[in-house]
Amino acid sequence: MARIVKRWPVLRLDADGGRRERADQIAGEEPLEIRVGASAFSVTMRTPGSDLDLVIGFLVSEGVIRRADQVRQIAYDGLTPQGERDYNVVSVHLSQDVVMPDLARHVYTTSSCGVCGTASIEAIRKTSAYPVADDEVRFTLADLLALPQRLRERQDVFGRTGGVHAAALFTADDDGAPAVRCVREDVGRHNAVDKVVGWALRENHLPLRATVLQVSGRASFELVQKAAMAGVPVLSAVSAPSALAVELAQEVGLTLVAFNRGDRLNVYTGAHRVVSGTHT
Amino acid sequence: MARIVKRWPVLRLDADGGRRERADQIAGEEPLEIRVGASAFSVTMRTPGSDLDLVIGFLVSEGVIRRADQVRQIAYDGLTPQGERDYNVVSVHLSQDVVMPDLARHVYTTSSCGVCGTASIEAIRKTSAYPVADDEVRFTLADLLALPQRLRERQDVFGRTGGVHAAALFTADDDGAPAVRCVREDVGRHNAVDKVVGWALRENHLPLRATVLQVSGRASFELVQKAAMAGVPVLSAVSAPSALAVELAQEVGLTLVAFNRGDRLNVYTGAHRVVSGTHT
Repeated sequence: MARIVKRWPVLRLDADGGRRERADQIAGEEPLEIRVGASAFSVTMRTPGSDLDLVIGFLVSEGVIRRADQVRQIAYDGLTPQGERDYNVVSVHLSQDVVMPDLARHVYTTSSCGVCGTASIEAIRKTSAYPVADDEVRFTLADLLALPQRLRERQDVFGRTGGVHAAALFTADDDGAPAVRCVREDVGRHNAVDKVVGWALRENHLPLRATVLQVSGRASFELVQKAAMAGVPVLSAVSAPSALAVELAQEVGLTLVAFNRGDRLNVYTGAHRVVSGTHT
Repeated sequence: MARIVKRWPVLRLDADGGRRERADQIAGEEPLEIRVGASAFSVTMRTPGSDLDLVIGFLVSEGVIRRADQVRQIAYDGLTPQGERDYNVVSVHLSQDVVMPDLARHVYTTSSCGVCGTASIEAIRKTSAYPVADDEVRFTLADLLALPQRLRERQDVFGRTGGVHAAALFTADDDGAPAVRCVREDVGRHNAVDKVVGWALRENHLPLRATVLQVSGRASFELVQKAAMAGVPVLSAVSAPSALAVELAQEVGLTLVAFNRGDRLNVYTGAHRVVSGTHT
């Protein structure tokens, strides 16, 4: 745990048939629990490294502190279940002149709750409404490579502002070719995905079996979690995945494609759902 | 309020001396308060549009609901202080079989708290530890255009993974040229900025007067808020700003530069700090 960069075996596929397996480096992403005094204050997903600066800067941003002498002590002082130092927990003790804001307002919870990645992953396995591991859908490489462009063509707000993320849901049609079902945009990519999932629930399409979700940015832990909760078996991202995203995808049996650039892509997990040739 | 796209007067500056003022479209970003039953459940920054889908999808992602019939009613039912319908508040009523999770864990609070943009901006004006409006620093266009490349050269984790955001702090040296002081990377761009601010506090550099903060991604409300809280007078982003980011920058007197692509950039607020010629 608490590594800045992790290695993972990646399958790189090119449009012209190139196929290469190698260990790739992916950015670490792990939850950091921030404790102020004896109380839990916040949990945030972050790349390990400069954790004490992160905690201090967060307290400045939140208006809690403004001077160095207001930080009396800051350290990793939690223990893992194995009795080792837990580098995902930082405790800070502030000087007595600091007025703490209302705690409830500051418990920063993304969809990834829990104090270590493993705990989060287990929590999601338990609560996931729909299993995805047994989804037998297949998509051809050519169809997957076409998704970023098909998403881009439907990004109305991006076209005007250049400033939003997007998520598009495609279903495997009778001939196996992906058909676009729903496209949503938002400044927050997690919101774009939530908008797609909300549409699907209202239309009684959950679980989203035999679908692929294309997103415009990176594949974070949060996006894999949202896809899994809605029963989406394949997630494709234009940019890089995080380490925790890859680990969660592996754990729940979801196919994770990233760096999908139109002429090439990387498969991190569930490569059996990516096939060559024409539609299956 | 609650607009998907807003217009704002933008000053576009090119490396070769081109200078053009025009109204640009920027992506809307506003807080949405989600109420479940009579209780506040979450506040999230989002681009207005498909709000009901966003709320429903969020509840699916959080494992609260999984079927359409669990949503008994969902609507905008708040009122603004002016007595009009508030399109930044959605209330949802769920069926009785739904087990609500612990509320405290689900109050999703980013640095932008508060139910409407105006309230948030006012809250920040009140709590901001350091004023930035009176900072008389100036940077040349050429120096600002060089920042993205200077940041990129120092992105160690990005170079290996392609998957992280970064923030770099530069100070105006004696001759006015920006000197790099601190570079931090993270999967979350708000974390990268918090890490820089935390470093600055520990080094007793707050407030960060006469500095420019270069970030690798978009300029969200949250990043402008963090810059303002630390006393940074100039924020430069590689990608697009959100509407609320621009409005907050204007309000606090911070210079906001975005779409900084090395050979051109857009100035959204505080253009007086961007000068031509050699170092001031």
